[in-house]
This record gives sequence, C-alpha cells and structure tokens, in this order.
Amino acid sequence: MQDWLAAQAYATPEGIALIAEGEHWTYRTLHQRVGQLAGALHRQGVRPGDLVGTLLPNSAAYVFLTHALARLKAVLIPLNTRLTAAELGYQLRATNAQYLIFAESYREISTGLGDLVTLCALDDLMRMDAVPIMEGTVDLDALQAIVFTSGTTGYPKGASITFGNQFWSALGSAYRIGTLPDDRWLCCLPLFHIGGLAILMRCCLYGTAVVLQNGFEVEAVTTAIRQHQVSLISLVPTMVYRMLKQPEAASALSQVRLVLIGGAATSADLLERCAALKIKASPTYGLSEACSQVVTMLPEEARRKPNSVGKPLLFSRVEIVDQNDQPVPPNTYGEVVVSGKTIMAGYYDDLQATDRVLREGKLHTGDIGYLDEDGDLFLVQRRSDLIVSGGENVYPAEVEGALCAHPAVEAACVVGIPDPEWGQRVGALVVLKPDADLSEADLLGFARQRLAGYKQPRVLHFVPALPMTASGKIQRRLAAEWLKDHAHDQG
Amino acid sequence: MQDWLAAQAYATPEGIALIAEGEHWTYRTLHQRVGQLAGALHRQGVRPGDLVGTLLPNSAAYVFLTHALARLKAVLIPLNTRLTAAELGYQLRATNAQYLIFAESYREISTGLGDLVTLCALDDLMRMDAVPIMEGTVDLDALQAIVFTSGTTGYPKGASITFGNQFWSALGSAYRIGTLPDDRWLCCLPLFHIGGLAILMRCCLYGTAVVLQNGFEVEAVTTAIRQHQVSLISLVPTMVYRMLKQPEAASALSQVRLVLIGGAATSADLLERCAALKIKASPTYGLSEACSQVVTMLPEEARRKPNSVGKPLLFSRVEIVDQNDQPVPPNTYGEVVVSGKTIMAGYYDDLQATDRVLREGKLHTGDIGYLDEDGDLFLVQRRSDLIVSGGENVYPAEVEGALCAHPAVEAACVVGIPDPEWGQRVGALVVLKPDADLSEADLLGFARQRLAGYKQPRVLHFVPALPMTASGKIQRRLAAEWLKDHAHDQG
Repeated sequence: MQDWLAAQAYATPEGIALIAEGEHWTYRTLHQRVGQLAGALHRQGVRPGDLVGTLLPNSAAYVFLTHALARLKAVLIPLNTRLTAAELGYQLRATNAQYLIFAESYREISTGLGDLVTLCALDDLMRMDAVPIMEGTVDLDALQAIVFTSGTTGYPKGASITFGNQFWSALGSAYRIGTLPDDRWLCCLPLFHIGGLAILMRCCLYGTAVVLQNGFEVEAVTTAIRQHQVSLISLVPTMVYRMLKQPEAASALSQVRLVLIGGAATSADLLERCAALKIKASPTYGLSEACSQVVTMLPEEARRKPNSVGKPLLFSRVEIVDQNDQPVPPNTYGEVVVSGKTIMAGYYDDLQATDRVLREGKLHTGDIGYLDEDGDLFLVQRRSDLIVSGGENVYPAEVEGALCAHPAVEAACVVGIPDPEWGQRVGALVVLKPDADLSEADLLGFARQRLAGYKQPRVLHFVPALPMTASGKIQRRLAAEWLKDHAHDQG
Repeated sequence: MQDWLAAQAYATPEGIALIAEGEHWTYRTLHQRVGQLAGALHRQGVRPGDLVGTLLPNSAAYVFLTHALARLKAVLIPLNTRLTAAELGYQLRATNAQYLIFAESYREISTGLGDLVTLCALDDLMRMDAVPIMEGTVDLDALQAIVFTSGTTGYPKGASITFGNQFWSALGSAYRIGTLPDDRWLCCLPLFHIGGLAILMRCCLYGTAVVLQNGFEVEAVTTAIRQHQVSLISLVPTMVYRMLKQPEAASALSQVRLVLIGGAATSADLLERCAALKIKASPTYGLSEACSQVVTMLPEEARRKPNSVGKPLLFSRVEIVDQNDQPVPPNTYGEVVVSGKTIMAGYYDDLQATDRVLREGKLHTGDIGYLDEDGDLFLVQRRSDLIVSGGENVYPAEVEGALCAHPAVEAACVVGIPDPEWGQRVGALVVLKPDADLSEADLLGFARQRLAGYKQPRVLHFVPALPMTASGKIQRRLAAEWLKDHAHDQG
C-alpha cells in the first residue's frame, strides 16, 4: 500500500491537513514538509526498522516527525514528557531505542540519556539540508509505534501498534461516528498517548484536518472550535466538566458535530448536562493495546442508555468472561475481552506480559464490565482497581457514585487501602464544590444511607483536587498511596 | 474477515439497513432474512464458488439474495433484465453459470434458458424452510460478482469483481464524499449494473441505509427523498435534468447532502443549474472494471472547475498515456489508465480481452481525457467513440457541445458513419426543445461558424429522443446504426 500521506497528498492535495501554532498545512504542503524531514532523518542515519524515541510537546513538528518516521519505516516511540529521567531511561532500554529526538524544552533531560541513544534535536533536523524522500509504502503488519500504557497500574509496558491497527481503527471509527470531507478534529490530548496519535493517523486516511493544541485549556479550545469550525473533538470527562462550567465554552462545544468522551467513565450526570446544552456527547471506550477506540455509542443512544459505552466498532468484538475465561450471560459482571484487527501485536519484547493479556488473538483488558441483552457494553471498573474487603468485591465506581450523589460533592476517588485484618479497606478522596458546607462525618453519614456496610469508606479525606494523569485519568495508585499515609479510620 | 452483513448486524443491529417496497429492515432483521435465504440456497444445492445468474428487478429480495450469495461464497452474476433470451444465454454460457434465479416477471424468458442452468424462482427460495446460515467469512481476493459491462461498444464482457474491489471502493468513496451514521443512499440505478451493486455493498460496510427503488421515476424519487430523509443519491445526468425540470423535484434534490452524477459526462450547464438551485452536485467517473467510482469531485470544487470529474479516490491512481503507453504531460489528450485496489481481477474466463485492457495491474479504460496541472481529470470521450475522418480526430463531445450551444437544441449525439472515401463521416442526431423553430440546414449553418471543416456534421437528423441504455447512457452504437441507414449527405 502507498504511504498514506503521499496517497492523500495525491488524492486531496488542497485539503487542509493540519492547523497548529497559528499556521495551517494542506496535504500537499504537509507532504513536502514531511518529505524534507524524512530526508533529514535518513541523512542522520535513521533506517527502516530503527526505533526512535521522541520527547516532544504537541506541535506541528511532532506531526511532521510522525509521518516522516512512517515514510522511513522507522518505529515511533512517543515518550511521555512528564516522566523522570529514570523512567525515560527504562522505556528507552526496554525498547532498545537507537535514537531520541527531543524538543528544545527537553534538551536537559534528554542530554542525560545520551549514553543510551543517539540524541537529535528536532529543530536541527527541521533545518537540515537533505534530499527529500517523497515516496513510501506501508506494510499493514509493520510496527508503526510502541506506545507505553499510561501506567496508572503496574509497570509501563510498550504496546506494539502496527499500521494495520491504525488502519482498521480509522475505518471502524469512521464507519461508526462518520467522516465528512470538511471535518476538523481537535486534538488536545497528548500525541504520546494512543488517543492523540490515533487522531493523526485517522485524519490522514480520511483526508481531513487535525486542529492541534498543546494541552487542554478551556479558553484555547473554545477559541479554536469557533475559529477553525471544529467538527470533532476527543476529550476526557474532566475536560468536558470544565468546559460545561463556562457558558461560552459549552456553547462552542454544542457546535461540534460529535464530542468523543473517553479515557475514563462518562457519568450519566455528564451526559444529562451535555444533552441539556445540546452537546452531542459520544461515550467511548478504548485502550492503547487496541489502538484507541473499540466501543462507541452515538449521542442519541447515549441519552437513552446513559451508563453504557455502546457497541464495538465494525470488525471489533467484545466478550465478557469469568475467572476461568468462560463467556458469561448478559448482565453478568466479568472481564472485558476485546478482539479484532486493532489489537496490538503484543507488548514490545515482553512475551511474558503479552501472554498474560493476549490469548488466541483476544485481549484480556483487565477491565470489568457487562454486556446487556442488546450487546451494549457497561464498564464498571478496571479489575486492578477492584477493592476486595473482607472477601467482598467493592467496585470503586459504585462508591464514588454514592458520594457524588451528594449535592456538595464535585468529585470522588475511591481506592483500597491495605489492611492486615480485612485485606483492604475502602478509602476515599473527595473534592467539594466551592463554598460547600459539609463535614467529612456528614458525608460518611450520607454514604451510610446508600451503601452496604462493607462498601462504606473507612477513611475519607477532603482534598482540593484529585491526582490526574496527563490524559486526564484519575491516578488511583497515587490516591491509594496518599491515603495509606493519611489513614486514620473514621468509619 | 467476518461476513460484512453479520459484522454489521453485530455492530449496528438497530440501524436501518434497507428501505424498499414500503417496508424497512434493520441490520438485525436483514441479517436474519439473509440467513434464511442463505439456508434455502444451500438446501437448493448452491455451494462455495458456484456461479449464480440472476434475472431480477430492483427489490428487497434482490438485496437479500446479494448478501446471501456472499455468505455462501457463491458468485453473483447480475443479468441485465432488458436483454433478449439469446443475449442472456450468451452471458450464462460465457460464465458457465450453474443457476439462474429469476423473479416471477421473468419466468417465461428464464424457462427458455432451462437447458443451460438450474432454474430457481426467487419467490420459492424466499418461502423455503431451511436451517438459517448466520455466519460467514470474507476473503478479499474471492469473487463477489461478475458484472457484464453495459455493452454500448463491442461484445459484453464479464468484469470479475472481488470482495476486495468492493471493500476498497467503499473506503475510497467514504473518505472522499464522507459517510454519516444516519446517511440514506437512494439507489434507483439497476442493481445489475456496478453503480447500483456498489451502493449495496458500501452501505453494508458503513452501517447506513439503502433506499431502493425499481427504476427512475421523478415523482417516486422526489417522494422518497422527502419521506426517508435521503442524504445521498446516485444519478446519471439525464435523470438530474429531468428532476430539475420540476420545481418540487429540484427542491427535494437540494435537500440531499450529495448528488453523485456519473455514468456519462456532467455538463457545465448542468452544474450551473444545480448550483443555482443549491443542489450539491458531485461529478464522478467510474466503470464496471474498477468497481464503480474512481474519480469524484466535491460540489464546491465542481463549480470552480465545471468540466472536470476531479481527483482519484484514495489509493486509486489515474494516468494519461499516448498510443505507445507512454505518460503524456498535463493538458494533453490521451487514454485514461486507472490503477489501484478497485481494479477487477479480469474479464471472466477471457484472457484475451483481459490482456487488452489490464497490463501490469493498470486498467486501460479506452476513455480519452487529460489531467490538468492540479491533477484533476477531464474526460473527453470514449476512445471507441472517437471519429477519425480523413485522418483527423474528431471528438464527438466537442461537436455535440457546438450543437447544444444553439438555444433551440435540447440534446445531441454525434457519431462516425463509415465512409469509403473519408474512413468516417461525422453524423449527428439532434433533439430540439419543445416548440423550437429551427431547420436542420439552419443548425448546420450555426455549427459551421463554430467548428473546423472536418468536424462539421455531414449528416444531421432531428429525432424525438436519443437511444439510451438502462443506466441512462447514450447508445452510440444504435445511433450510428440508425444514421448509417438514414444517411444522405447534407453537409
């Protein structure tokens, strides 16, 4: 198959491909820019199959680099810019990366990794004189990227994402949520996570535009939606909540054809608020190991079935299995198992970890959920987040729901705290709404009326904010660690 | 890959799949209906690889049958219902078809073909008790259908269309013109031509609805657009002209997201009229041998460049070559050569004909055109329609354009008439507008002011209508034959 960007530059040369940093690129000009950078990378010694780490903020140059590496058949390893030098070193070693391409703002931390890899400043590559490389081919079985899972649980593992994964993910997404020639997809998620990276690859296949932002700012996103006629946007629930709080932002969001909400559970409350503001919210479930989006519910259905993420995309499958890997009947909790052509080739160079999750081509996600009679997926929790207290299973989502039902509560995070007697006790971090007048004891009393004894928080603290990952997921591990250190039983 | 309909019934069970004959089917109910019919066909003896002719009008049952044959891995040979018994017999023999499935209205002509094939009445199959076949797989390299080219020139040849051809055609089309979850594609083109058949396969992959009509009637199409919120429609230029004549029809057409116009050249005049009525007309160029749509221009660009059909779909390529198969510079006439994943496997069981058109995976279309500097395709004529008179090339389209420039002329068809002295002479059939006051000599005088001597019609007749194929193309061969019999030199 022809190099995707080259093919699109031929099919849709004057179509807008990228809007970033106050500039825009058509598929023709993007193709030229990428050709130059591919030439520079080649001159620098990058060859097919080479593994190239990147330490970059979202930027136009990052987009160029992603396509340039694809053209050279080199593998992108997009590193999380929040990591420490030690964490970065671990990921570079784990993948045997030969190169690290860094932005100026990460020069210092990158320099410290010079023993492991050949360092290249992206700015230097961009300025380098080289013979452009304008052609390429794509092998769907070849590696496109190694994307480290955000690592909210366990040690980070590099999901080996092929071009085929991206291709089928793009197709499944387009055929579910639609694509239009003048679509513009706003990406404020980090490109080092699969949710951001997949947007780049999709839009390139569709011939549509990416509106790229470096990080999420309510005002910047609001302005961009209006200014660039954004028609699609991918957000995590906390971002949507923040936009809903500002009428101008909520109004802009209602102009978007579809708001994909993923990365964490979309609450019924959030969907209700969106519906009231005519925001077309589309809950979605995806993961790095399945190249992002796997299950998506369209806005209209989401209003009818507010706690579901809907049905798998075309050619993807979801099953629910019990501890013995046996399928369970509808409406029965179990582990979510995903299969189809978007499932990663495996964890890079980690057969043991791969074998734990990939069996007969099926990805055991570690997420807990159920399918209803219609085949719509309901997610309950990541299995690793499940609290087992005195032999009873406690689903943090259920306890969080009970706490959030109190009008003074803004957000809650419920985790297990190690306990010699009970195995785990239920702990909660709670963020109150501004000016809320509520004591921790009052809230515990409120919860007691709603939850069985074993589900009730034994430790509960009001905090100003919950710990979040770069992609907006709650960092349950950090919450658990903090609570362990501040545990005095209140229940 | 999973059977497409089964996959869609799983991914979008409640989505509308088909609206026909006053009924509708969701993907779930269509899947069930198709499973039953597949069971009946299997009971009847149809096996993988079997070749199955069909003689059917557009109908819901035809749709069921198309998917049922795919599920059984049997090959559909959709026969043109306008053919004579002799012509049908030729096509059934040419493909070694084992079965002919016919509608009640074609029982008599079908019965006459009983020596060649096993006959099955579709009504009987639909009523048959059988174990449903609900699962299937798709091999992209396998034959889905053998579609006979409409045969306006030469003898009809069966284009071998694979599932891969359909898959890539669907993808290229969706990524060019867009697809939306609630799209409804009105199909009034015969399903026995590739233009109709491709709509079925596409919508099945997209999870969207086909609104099926048996034949084109202005009123029926107008009503269907309004009643079923049609968003896409495929028409040939004559159909569009007929709709524009009726304000109610034109108004309905302006509600459609995109009007794909193919099968014959879309004139600048037609595009202008569409633009004036806010009809989003999208000129397109396709052919059976490339599984329909190859090149398509979006409405906005079409207004800027009214004589072009635009750029190839993603992963399709168009080149223009001279008589020695060498590429020619931009703006130079030559043969249109198409390549990509939608190109047929070949003409069924006809290596000689295949070798004439397919060389190194490239389809030599026999159409004449040029690419401009932007890579937009302009079609001039089918090569087989080219008139060579006294060694000079005459493009019928150019002469027709000159004749149609006269305000009294409704339509014109220009063909070559064999001539012992000149090789060919230029002949014209002309349809005047109602109440036009114009003589044949007057029109010839008008043409003389616009055309070089060798291009001027030597024979010209006013006729009430031009001979048309089922898909709305001018039948140049019939026009030439009629003119040959009525030729008295007037030039």
